[in-house]
Order: sequence, then C-alpha cells, then structure tokens
Amino acid sequence: MYRNRTCGELRIADINQEVTLSGWVHKIRKMGGMTFIDLRDRYGITQLSFNQEVNHDLAEQANKLGREWVIRVVGKVQERSSKNSNIATGDIEIIASEIKVLNKSKNPPFTIETDTDGGDDLRMKYRYLDLRRDVVRKNLELRHKMTFETRRYLDERNFMEVETPMLIASTPEGARDFVVPSRMNQGEFYALPQSPQLFKQLLMVSGFDRYFQIVKCFRDEDLRADRQPEFTQIDCEMSFVDQEDVINTFEGLTKHLFKTLKGIEIEGDFPRMSYADAMKYYGSDKPDIRFEMKFVEIKDLTEGANFVVFDNAEYVGAICVEGCASYTRKQMDELTNFVKRPQVGAKGLIYVRYNEDETIKSSVDKFFSEEVLKTWAERCNAKPGDLILVMAGETVETQEQLCELRLEMGNQLGLRDKNDFKCLWVVDFPLLEKDDELNRFFAKHHPFTSPKAEDIDLLDTNPAAVRANAYDMIINGVEIGGGSIRIHDSELQKKMFSVLGFSDENAQEQFGFLMDAFQYGAPPHGGIAFGLDRFVSIFAGLSSIRDCIAFPKNNSGRDVMIDAPATIAQEQLDELGIALVKKEN
Amino acid sequence: MYRNRTCGELRIADINQEVTLSGWVHKIRKMGGMTFIDLRDRYGITQLSFNQEVNHDLAEQANKLGREWVIRVVGKVQERSSKNSNIATGDIEIIASEIKVLNKSKNPPFTIETDTDGGDDLRMKYRYLDLRRDVVRKNLELRHKMTFETRRYLDERNFMEVETPMLIASTPEGARDFVVPSRMNQGEFYALPQSPQLFKQLLMVSGFDRYFQIVKCFRDEDLRADRQPEFTQIDCEMSFVDQEDVINTFEGLTKHLFKTLKGIEIEGDFPRMSYADAMKYYGSDKPDIRFEMKFVEIKDLTEGANFVVFDNAEYVGAICVEGCASYTRKQMDELTNFVKRPQVGAKGLIYVRYNEDETIKSSVDKFFSEEVLKTWAERCNAKPGDLILVMAGETVETQEQLCELRLEMGNQLGLRDKNDFKCLWVVDFPLLEKDDELNRFFAKHHPFTSPKAEDIDLLDTNPAAVRANAYDMIINGVEIGGGSIRIHDSELQKKMFSVLGFSDENAQEQFGFLMDAFQYGAPPHGGIAFGLDRFVSIFAGLSSIRDCIAFPKNNSGRDVMIDAPATIAQEQLDELGIALVKKEN
Repeated sequence: MYRNRTCGELRIADINQEVTLSGWVHKIRKMGGMTFIDLRDRYGITQLSFNQEVNHDLAEQANKLGREWVIRVVGKVQERSSKNSNIATGDIEIIASEIKVLNKSKNPPFTIETDTDGGDDLRMKYRYLDLRRDVVRKNLELRHKMTFETRRYLDERNFMEVETPMLIASTPEGARDFVVPSRMNQGEFYALPQSPQLFKQLLMVSGFDRYFQIVKCFRDEDLRADRQPEFTQIDCEMSFVDQEDVINTFEGLTKHLFKTLKGIEIEGDFPRMSYADAMKYYGSDKPDIRFEMKFVEIKDLTEGANFVVFDNAEYVGAICVEGCASYTRKQMDELTNFVKRPQVGAKGLIYVRYNEDETIKSSVDKFFSEEVLKTWAERCNAKPGDLILVMAGETVETQEQLCELRLEMGNQLGLRDKNDFKCLWVVDFPLLEKDDELNRFFAKHHPFTSPKAEDIDLLDTNPAAVRANAYDMIINGVEIGGGSIRIHDSELQKKMFSVLGFSDENAQEQFGFLMDAFQYGAPPHGGIAFGLDRFVSIFAGLSSIRDCIAFPKNNSGRDVMIDAPATIAQEQLDELGIALVKKEN
Repeated sequence: MYRNRTCGELRIADINQEVTLSGWVHKIRKMGGMTFIDLRDRYGITQLSFNQEVNHDLAEQANKLGREWVIRVVGKVQERSSKNSNIATGDIEIIASEIKVLNKSKNPPFTIETDTDGGDDLRMKYRYLDLRRDVVRKNLELRHKMTFETRRYLDERNFMEVETPMLIASTPEGARDFVVPSRMNQGEFYALPQSPQLFKQLLMVSGFDRYFQIVKCFRDEDLRADRQPEFTQIDCEMSFVDQEDVINTFEGLTKHLFKTLKGIEIEGDFPRMSYADAMKYYGSDKPDIRFEMKFVEIKDLTEGANFVVFDNAEYVGAICVEGCASYTRKQMDELTNFVKRPQVGAKGLIYVRYNEDETIKSSVDKFFSEEVLKTWAERCNAKPGDLILVMAGETVETQEQLCELRLEMGNQLGLRDKNDFKCLWVVDFPLLEKDDELNRFFAKHHPFTSPKAEDIDLLDTNPAAVRANAYDMIINGVEIGGGSIRIHDSELQKKMFSVLGFSDENAQEQFGFLMDAFQYGAPPHGGIAFGLDRFVSIFAGLSSIRDCIAFPKNNSGRDVMIDAPATIAQEQLDELGIALVKKEN
C-alpha cells in the first residue's frame, strides 16, 4: 500500500492519526537538529518533520533525499507549532517514522515552482516536468472540468455525443488538410477533419435531433502564435431550430460554465451587436466590450480646412480616451510609433487634447480652429481632461488600425482586466465576401450557411448585401464560438452554389454525398462550434492557448519533447507506395 | 417555431392541448375518408389524423405527402378510439389543423424499419438513412450514455480527462502506424497514435495521479470482421497503485455501467482466473464463462491402447456436453466438419456417447473398451445422456481447437444468451512470449509491463516462466479491457530491454523520451484501457462493433458513403514533398 491519504487533505481533525503518504520531495529545509520536507502530490503539500535527536538514522535518511525524489512516508499527524496559512494543510505536519524511496530523481533542469526559471524551450522539451507545476496543472484541471460540465449541460438537454470519423476524404475548399496515405488503397489518401461539419449535418438528416462532440480537428496552416495544427472543438448541431434557439441554448451553456467553473453569475441576456455595428464602432468582428471608447466618425466635421490627409481620406475616425489629455509628448510619440508598427501599419496619428482648463490643443492646430476642434470633442462626448485620437484613410483599413489603437489604450488604462468577463453575440454577418482580385464571391462561413429569409432576393441583385443567419460568440474580444442556421432546401442550396460560381458538376464532386443526403428529407437545422482551447484559456486568464494543452506543438508544428514529426523507415514508405521528393535547390 | 413538443411525449394528460410537432412521415394509411400519418422524430412516433369530411383540403394535402417527407403540423391532442399499446404515445392522436412541408424526400432505397430490407452495402452507402432506424440509433444512444456514465464515475474519483496529441511520432514496435506527411518539415512524418500509452505514463511522471481519456486510436492493420482502422479507447492510468487498486477501481466502473445502463446489479467480486488456468480449462485467454464445459485432460487414460492418434498426441482433451448423447449421426458429422474447417483446423473429432441406459458407445470402440471409456466419463463428470467430445494433438493448438468446439456447443445448447453477462478477470499473464523462429522474446503486453516481484529472479534463468502484473477484463468471452502495472524503476527497465534483446542505443532511440522522463522521479503506476466499441456492442447485444459506430469503414478500410480514401491533387502531393510510386506489374 503506497498511501492511505493524499498530501492535500490532512487537517487539525486528523491529529494523532497514523497515515501513509506518497509523493515528491518538493523542498528540504534543515534547521538545527530538525529537517523539514515539503511532500507534494497533485492534491497539495504536506510538511514532514524529522528530529535528529529523536530518530537520528531517519533524519539522516531524510537529509540524503533530493529534490523531486519520490518517497513513501509513514508517520503521525501532529499540530504545527508555527502554522502556515498559505496552504490548506498548514495547521499540521507529519512526524515521520519510516521513509521508503520509491524512485530517485536527477536534478530537474528548472525549478518546479509557480514562477519557474525555465524558459519556453526548456519547459517544452521537459513538458512532463513543466506539467508538475501547479499553475500549469490547474489549467488542465480547468479544461477537464469545462469539458465535463459541458457534457453534463448538453446531456441534460437531450444532446447525444456522437463520434464522427477521423479518417475522411480531403476537400479542396477551405484550409489545407493533413492527409494520410492509405496502404490498403495505394495511391489514395484519407484526410484528417478540419471539423465534423458535414457529418454533423448528416446526423441531422438522420434525425439525431441534437448532436454534440468534443473533438480533435486538424488544419495544416502556417502557424501563428495562437494556432495549433491540432485543436479541439465543442461541436454542436440541432434540428428544427432557428437562430434564436441556438443562441439561447449556448448562451445557457456559457452561463452554466461561468457559474460552475468561475462562480460567476451572469445576469440577463448577452448583448448582441450586428456585424455592421461591430465594424463601425469597434473596427472588428470580435469587439472587446469590457470598455466603451467607441469609434466616432468626424469626416464631415473636417471638410473645407484644406488638410489634405483628411480630404483624401475615405474615412476619418476618432476615439475619446478618458482623462488622458495630460499624456506627455513622449507618450504621444510612443502611441504614434505604436500605430506605425508594421503589425498595425498606419501612416500616423493625430491627437486633440481637451485640457482640464477647457482649452484645446491638437497636432493639427495649423488647419483647424479651436471652434472646429470643439465640434469634434462634442461629437466624441469628450470632457475636459480627455484625449481624442484621430486616424484617417481607407475605411476598412483605418477601422482596423483604430481598433488596434483602441485596444492598446484599453491596456494602458487597465480597462482589460482578465478577471472581468464580457460576453457578446455578433450577428447578421454578411453571407458572402468578395475577392476583388478573382472577382468572385466566397462564403464568409461555409457554403451551407443560410441567408436571412428577407435578404434572399438580394442574392440576384446585390449579393454583397445579403446577411446570413450566422452568429459568433465573443468573450473579451476573443472569438470563442461561431455557427449558423444551415440551408436545408435543395433549391436554395443550388442557388447558393451558383452565386459562389460552382458548376453543378463541381458542387456534386465536392459535396455530392451531402447534396444526395439532402434529397431524403433534411430537417431545418443549425449549430455552433466552440474553440475549446480558447474557451479554457479565457477562463484561465492565459494569453496563449498553449498552456491549456498538455502536449502542445511549437510554431513549426514540432513536438520537441517526443521529436515529432520524424523520418520514417524506407520500408514504411514502400508499403504505402509513396516516395520522398528531393527539394530542388 | 418548428415545434413545441416532440413526437415521443404526448399522453392522455395532454388532451385538448394545441401542439406543434415536426418530424418525418413514417407511414401513411388511408381508411375510408380518414387519413392517418405516423409522424416520427428521435423521441418517438405520434399519429396524426385527417378527416376528409371535416377538412377536405387538409386531408388532400396529407394524402399527397410521401414517405420520409419532413413536415410541421399544428393540431389538437385527442384521445384515440383504438389505442396502440405498442408505442408510448399510443393513447392519443393529433387532429391536425395545419400542415407545412419543410422538405420533400426521394423514396428511400430501403425501408426505415427495425427489420429493414436493405443489405449491408446499401445501408453503408446510405448510412445517414440507416441511422434513422430505431435499432441503429439506440446503439449510439447507448454509446453516448456509456461514455457519459464512464466520465461521471471517473470524475467522481478524481480522474482527470487529459487530451494527448494525435500527431505524434512513429514507433517501429507493435502494429503498423498510419502516418501523416508534414508539409512544414518536409521528408518527415507524424504518426497517428495506436494508443496514448507513452503519454499517459508521462502524465504519471507529471504527478497527474489519475488520468483518463476517451480517445480515438489508429492501427493500420489488415482488417478482420471486428476491426476498424480507427477505434475508441477508454484509456486510464493511476499512480501509487498496485494491481489490486486498478482492478477494484475498474470493476467498480463496470458495475456502475451495468447498473446505470442495463439496470443490472452485479453482486460480489468478479471471478479471477490465472492465464494458465484459462488456457488449461478453456483453451483461451478470454474464456466465456456463461457456461462450464471445462476441458478435461485424459491423455493418461488413453495409454496402452495402441491408438496412434492419441499415442502421438502431446495432449488429449475432452469436453462433456450435457444431454447430447442422442446427437444423430448427421449432427456428429456436422460437428466433425465444424472442427475441420480451416478456421478451426483440426484433423478430426472423437466422440463418446454416454447413453441414458448407461451403455457407452464411441467412435473409437475398436481401441477402447467400455471400462476405459467409463474412466473418461468419470473424469469428465459425465452423466448418462451426456456426450463427450475428444480432441488430440499438440497442446496449444488442440486447446484452441477445443475452445472453438466448446463455444459452438455453447451456441447449439443456447448457453450463450446475449442478455446474460458474465465478467471475469484473467490475471498472471506471462510477461514474455518467445518467437521460436527468431529465437527471441517479445513483450506479451508491452515493454513497460512489470514482472511480478517474486518472479524477477526468473528473468535470468527462465524468462518464459515470468508472470506479469497484467490483467484483462473479459465479458462473455470478449476481451473488453486490459492493462498492467508498469515498471517505474530504471534498473528493472534496463533489465527488461536487455531480455527483449534491445541494445542500449536501440532502447534509447525508440523510447528515449520516456526513459529520460523516468530519470526524474517516476512514481509507481499502472492502468488499463477498454475497447469502447466492444464494450458498447456487448451491452447492445451486437455481434459486430460496426453498428455501434456512426460512420464505420468496411473491410477494405473504405468509407463507402463519403468515398474515402480518395486521390488527392498533384498540388497537395507537391506541397508535401511526396510522390506516388507506381506499382510494378
């Protein structure tokens, strides 16, 4: 028997009990004739105490233990003379009577502490040691709880978890697939799913009514900071529903998760914002609404001043930053540098200080009188002491730049507290996106997303104006989930393919089995998918998804711990009927 | 609004309520001026009633509906005059006032009924229609419940579900891997996991203490009837445990599943049987103990009769089949043919009829007197009326053949009721298996399985006799799960590798990162993995795992519905830096 209690559970009430614990030697401290060991397991830390005078041999044995050794200890629970209120077991210690070394440990390459001295590369190479750190393991505990509570909530509402296949066929639309050569069908390949989209729609055709799955998905994209080649989705679909039903169900799930995992009760409905408003007021389809600082358009107030920057601009937009009129020259320069960084890409930044004394001072005083500047301030609802920041240029580009600036100001003013959660539905997305170069339309979500009934006529006359029954859930400016009501009518689906420039043959080739299935009584249906990795990282207050994944890959798609990917044997290649192609130099 | 009630929930108490239902037209019956429609959804079937005299137009509309059309209907709940006690809603019907066709359907290629007229191939091609059948969907509902209850049970016991990666590195040991060419690291490949074995052991090194995962695994094997290239495991691992702890925990899980899913309370502990006994008495490491009919060795009773078949045999074994002395000549011939089939591969079958009148008649009367045959009958505990079946030859081979015969007799006597569940632990597996051709030992489970402490000395002197801390859970003769206590001591692990004929470099190359991890304080640990597909199919009383998988592959590894695997574009191959190799003719 290795233990009868864990290192996290002993309390004052357990005093005088003889217990057996097993765990890792977290710390050893010697004080005079006493040796204290912090013994650690997943559940906590318990102090072991050894007295040289009482049991010399045992204390000597304790002194020889090393960091991260695994031991089993028998001893009696005793009240501590100096209590430690920082840990749950801080009132007691164990007077050890027996130690057994279960395993030794080399000295770990970094300290197993909340604030470790290990850099990113080292931590990833020794991920199994990094996972020993409390802060990292807690993220994975949260992940476990989130999936468990998600399943509980959905099960109670008649959702069935159904596993869809991992070895499917490659589809040319969308992102790049990972493919898997087939040995039994040489020359052919499976693909790993980018999402179970088609299968969940087939399950609705099958009458499964309410489906969900927490499932690995794969995308062979060049990785950015917050992307992994494999990621996990909470994937859901419902039949006989409209947008309102889906939104209500999954707003409910989100509230359930906040309540059970964070103890946060969210009152009332999540606010909703149209895509058009999100772009207009925040320059983003995933606005962070923890703070206001909405965009204000002032182009009309800048006319006639011969300021060529504004006169040539399609769009002139401002944000009002509360209480920052006193920003120094240096601070203003830093802000200008911020917007000029290639990641933001603006040409410059114009400011208007509405000073506490109600005077106005701007970087464009040469062109605009104080009266004109006051009209800007008025439209921005600025108060004395506020700073107005103005950007100008092509509309979409400038809104995106202003969005970056707004978020930066939010950071500077501490308005983006990671423990403050603001949820939002963005709705009424455009159905289509035009690629001006190729002069054709693409589906903004995917070709099965339904247009709003009242916009269907526009498919012929003004496709760009058609809004979709599509919705995204945003928390704190991060897109956590998104979905849509699907097309279930074959005629409308045909229409959609024709707007997207598919020939009938093309559509049949790419989506044939779904189109076939839809001939046999497809119910109205719709769904949503959440990015689990992002959902967990928002809850955990992490800036990257990597630390809520047990064994993540780096930005080159490598697992540096196991060293994958790797070369395989020629024999394996031969069996698969494939050969490596040497790169040309 | 598509519905406010489902097709499975209306009862007498709902009479006079106006309801809206949506679903599929399951059946249409016309009787005089009346039309009755069975409307189906996942939750049940509700009868809709249309009266030509009351609402002529609506009845006409109903008459024009087709099988599997999707409709929305509004109407009033009414008590039926002729009730149908076969369905939950059989007391009521809906007097329809409004129909809306939500979608039409082509005539399905087979009937959507419990007993369908669709053959296997057709059902797989139109799997989305096959899944509409109650019997198929119920298997998937059971699967959902089984995973949900498994998670609930394990969560309550502090197990954490942790996702391990799907894109890992290929290992040459064991079955064939599916591989995934890497585009970002050309010339290198990921492999899909055959199991999360190494990762779950790393999580124990990380101090996760109790891990589980319900996870897809992949094996590129030539498929047999009950194999799929992708399958699902309930994968579990625990720290600071011995075999008894693991067995108790997962016996508890199994009982929990029987209770919650089948309403079956299993009293007492599951029986345990050593591997040696399982082979000796059942000729199998997964005996079906729903019935006895144990093997009886009678070689010693056959000596000195100059019957060359027995004299040359290493093993002579018998089973006693109760009450079958009266088997006809034809039945005996059929049994002989059964054991001679290539799948069984025996040369012949000898029988001894212990007749009701206590006379004995055998197929070897020429060689054995009635007295001798009586000694066989005695050892077999045969009673008058019983039939003794005898096979002889090389021990292991003959035991396997006798095993097949025993199971066949169990089938013939109706002793293998699929609603009777008998669970069993098989323990004390041999650690190693000798490949006589290669003259080397292989790990029976895997190289990390620990030997029994009392057998460790035998590793040097008689490796074949070393027993492992390994255990399998068997239900009704099907291996549902298996696991072991792992080696956590590096010295013992080295020893094990050397017995397996690995050089140090070899071991390092193949299992380096795990061996490294074990240097940093690996706790004692062990675990188990259950085959979910088999677990569900046993519970569902299915003979194949295929019908508890939503979208299974056929025996050539093809998904005939979506037509995967398939060729991919040259562009994709180029990006991956691989080329197809033409087969030589």
